[in-house]
Amino acid sequence: MKSIARKIKSIFMETVKETKRVGEEDPRRIIHAMKVGFALTLVSLFYYFRPLYNGFGQAGMWAILTVVVVFEFTVGGTLSKSLNRGCATLVAGALGVGAEYLAALCGDKGEPVVLGLMVFFLATTSTFTRFFPNVKRKYDYGVLIFILTFSLVAVSGFRVDQILHLAHRRLSTILIGGASCIVISIFVCPVWAGQDLHNLIAANIEKLGAFLEGFGTEFLIFHGDESGKINSSCKHGDQKSFLEGYKSVLNSKATEESLANFAWWEPPHGRFRFNHPWKQYLKIGALARDCACLIQSLNGYINSKSQSLVESEVKMKIKESCMKMSMESGKALKELASAVKTTAFHPLLAAGAHLQNSKSAADDLKIALENSSLLSAKADLQEIMPLLVVASVLIDINDGVDKIYESVNELSLKACFKNNPKSSKACELHQQVIIHRGVVKPVNDSEEHVVVVVVDGGASAEESPEKENRHPPPQ
Amino acid sequence: MKSIARKIKSIFMETVKETKRVGEEDPRRIIHAMKVGFALTLVSLFYYFRPLYNGFGQAGMWAILTVVVVFEFTVGGTLSKSLNRGCATLVAGALGVGAEYLAALCGDKGEPVVLGLMVFFLATTSTFTRFFPNVKRKYDYGVLIFILTFSLVAVSGFRVDQILHLAHRRLSTILIGGASCIVISIFVCPVWAGQDLHNLIAANIEKLGAFLEGFGTEFLIFHGDESGKINSSCKHGDQKSFLEGYKSVLNSKATEESLANFAWWEPPHGRFRFNHPWKQYLKIGALARDCACLIQSLNGYINSKSQSLVESEVKMKIKESCMKMSMESGKALKELASAVKTTAFHPLLAAGAHLQNSKSAADDLKIALENSSLLSAKADLQEIMPLLVVASVLIDINDGVDKIYESVNELSLKACFKNNPKSSKACELHQQVIIHRGVVKPVNDSEEHVVVVVVDGGASAEESPEKENRHPPPQ
Repeated sequence: MKSIARKIKSIFMETVKETKRVGEEDPRRIIHAMKVGFALTLVSLFYYFRPLYNGFGQAGMWAILTVVVVFEFTVGGTLSKSLNRGCATLVAGALGVGAEYLAALCGDKGEPVVLGLMVFFLATTSTFTRFFPNVKRKYDYGVLIFILTFSLVAVSGFRVDQILHLAHRRLSTILIGGASCIVISIFVCPVWAGQDLHNLIAANIEKLGAFLEGFGTEFLIFHGDESGKINSSCKHGDQKSFLEGYKSVLNSKATEESLANFAWWEPPHGRFRFNHPWKQYLKIGALARDCACLIQSLNGYINSKSQSLVESEVKMKIKESCMKMSMESGKALKELASAVKTTAFHPLLAAGAHLQNSKSAADDLKIALENSSLLSAKADLQEIMPLLVVASVLIDINDGVDKIYESVNELSLKACFKNNPKSSKACELHQQVIIHRGVVKPVNDSEEHVVVVVVDGGASAEESPEKENRHPPPQ
Repeated sequence: MKSIARKIKSIFMETVKETKRVGEEDPRRIIHAMKVGFALTLVSLFYYFRPLYNGFGQAGMWAILTVVVVFEFTVGGTLSKSLNRGCATLVAGALGVGAEYLAALCGDKGEPVVLGLMVFFLATTSTFTRFFPNVKRKYDYGVLIFILTFSLVAVSGFRVDQILHLAHRRLSTILIGGASCIVISIFVCPVWAGQDLHNLIAANIEKLGAFLEGFGTEFLIFHGDESGKINSSCKHGDQKSFLEGYKSVLNSKATEESLANFAWWEPPHGRFRFNHPWKQYLKIGALARDCACLIQSLNGYINSKSQSLVESEVKMKIKESCMKMSMESGKALKELASAVKTTAFHPLLAAGAHLQNSKSAADDLKIALENSSLLSAKADLQEIMPLLVVASVLIDINDGVDKIYESVNELSLKACFKNNPKSSKACELHQQVIIHRGVVKPVNDSEEHVVVVVVDGGASAEESPEKENRHPPPQ
């Protein structure tokens, strides 16, 4: 008996701990759970009170069903499911009525055969389309509801006018359920998939930067001057977490893709316009993963201490270049992360400068290696080898960072980062519209400039938000 | 008008092409779609025919709903959803009746308040538990159905005896729907998630092996003797696909995890016992991804041709070792893949031998590098550098392959591979039970041995299938 009680107690304690962890990891989860509870209570009571209940009949049940199934963590998820559900119900309902009508023409004996054939045919083809990548990505749930509604309507055995009456009631309850989900998820502490994707990409780039900076420091300490060793041991604990961060980058593909799919459904919010280039985030994410892969192969060399205490000139030279490359590309990545995070253009300039530094360090290294006088100093090839590998991987990482830089640059054009000198006409107009509407205050020196354009370009801005990649307008 | 017609035609052609591609990629998809169509038609007609319809009433609808929502591509998916749905409906229904009863005690005015509070509380806590990784992995759908059913029952406003009547009808229709899904998915061309996971892991290891073998060849051709060049150009097209294969390994984590979750629900089938070590597959998958990561950093060096035509002795030596390491670890991986694929132990021995060869090549390389006479030949450090990097990455890959080897070895013990000399007592007994039951015919020389143990150990075999990792029994 006692051991059972102890076991129950330990399970209970585990659950409390896990609850705390899950809640602390992302407090929005608690709010989301309460939002779902609230929406469900609202719809339930709506269904419970008799006058409404008598009006909608059993169909009120569909409102509860809709809320439970449709309410997702992000706004995009909720919208995607509600819209899919709504449209699919409409289309399938209409087709179902048609099928019912057709089957009725075939007489009493033909009816079940025709209905059965139609259900089979539609269910089979629709299920097959769910394997199409495009359909799977955005309309999977819609196809499911389409099959469901079509079968239900076609087989219901009601006359057409009965069906119309039923459909009217069912659709209105589904609308009530879906609408309350959408309203609550948008207006009560919304969780935007777009914002999450944006933050995730920035955080991933930041993590890679933190690793490279940390690697630069560790590299200096373990391989370089002895005096640094004391400093390192106290910092070591903090740095370890930096050096592990890149691993989560390697596995973020699935999260990124689902967030991008949901973000596609979301209305403009905060800094994100309609038609925000979400696909560009996926590109940056893929490049970041390539970079993380290279970093992983670098990770093995963190703890390889130099074996000889006397450092040859070649080694010192290579080490110095490696350290510089690592630090500078780390800094470049951090600037890129901050550019994405703040959607501002100026950190991109800083990132470019750091990249340039890193490249010149790589060039220094190449010159050092070409310099044959270095080789005459009897360097042991095996001892230099880890260093050479680190240097070579760092050069590859440099190229990777360069690609991320290009890609963020592209994003800065497509997503209209602030103060981008190359930004297109559409962007400028868009930002002026935002300023005009008072969403974002003008940041710095362009006060005059803004006033001028709001007067002559304000109207056309709203007409052509999709015309991107243009040259800046002559003013 | 003409342009619209042309556009429609092109969309139509695209769809036909895509359909063909999706179907050819995995023909089981077509069969799955037809299975769903068949199950749905069956249940629909069941619902359509009046005698049954009158018996079950509107509840027949739940059978259709269950089929549409529950039927998944793999057996494990279908089982997981049906069992989740069944159990959750039962538990939530019982709780709902309790809630209804409790609320009725609070009088007419208290009833809606109590019901509302209970729905809110249960929906909130249940939604929150969906964020727990353990719940999310296996019971996500169950929790959803739990919330749904509880709200529906609690709010239905029926008296308890009415609810029991309703619940009986609804449960029996859900059972009919779920059971027909399970039966059709298991007995008509079943798609086992376990088998798919097994094949996926084997295929991934095979792809890595193919890359390394291909790399070894390309390496020889581009960097080595001129005579090989002609051979290479004609093979080149075929090899390219080998050299791209590893990329899909990098992104297979999500697929592996969902397959492993579904496999957990599946009954024993084919070579897979109850409690098959699916988690071990995930471990192997993770190691394979680490290896793929290293391979990606190798990929950049495929097309770096040697610039000087005259090959120095150092270079030739390093190249030879690299080629050998690459070929041998590639062969080791291919043997490991075949061991997993055929669940046989003997390819593991071959893999071990190849790994040993690869390690001795690495040792040769180290000796060659230590040999100072090589350095006196004025080798250009910058020219050797890419070679050194390739060598170093190949050594890391060797370690990675070694880890995969260990992990597959562990799998061979846990999953009772054929003819494993170290296999545990439980495994031997298990295989004898299989042989005894006539599922698998005895493979080779152990005819006598089998007869002896079936006589004295047959009974205990079925009692202790979970006692693994024991020493072989003294006989």
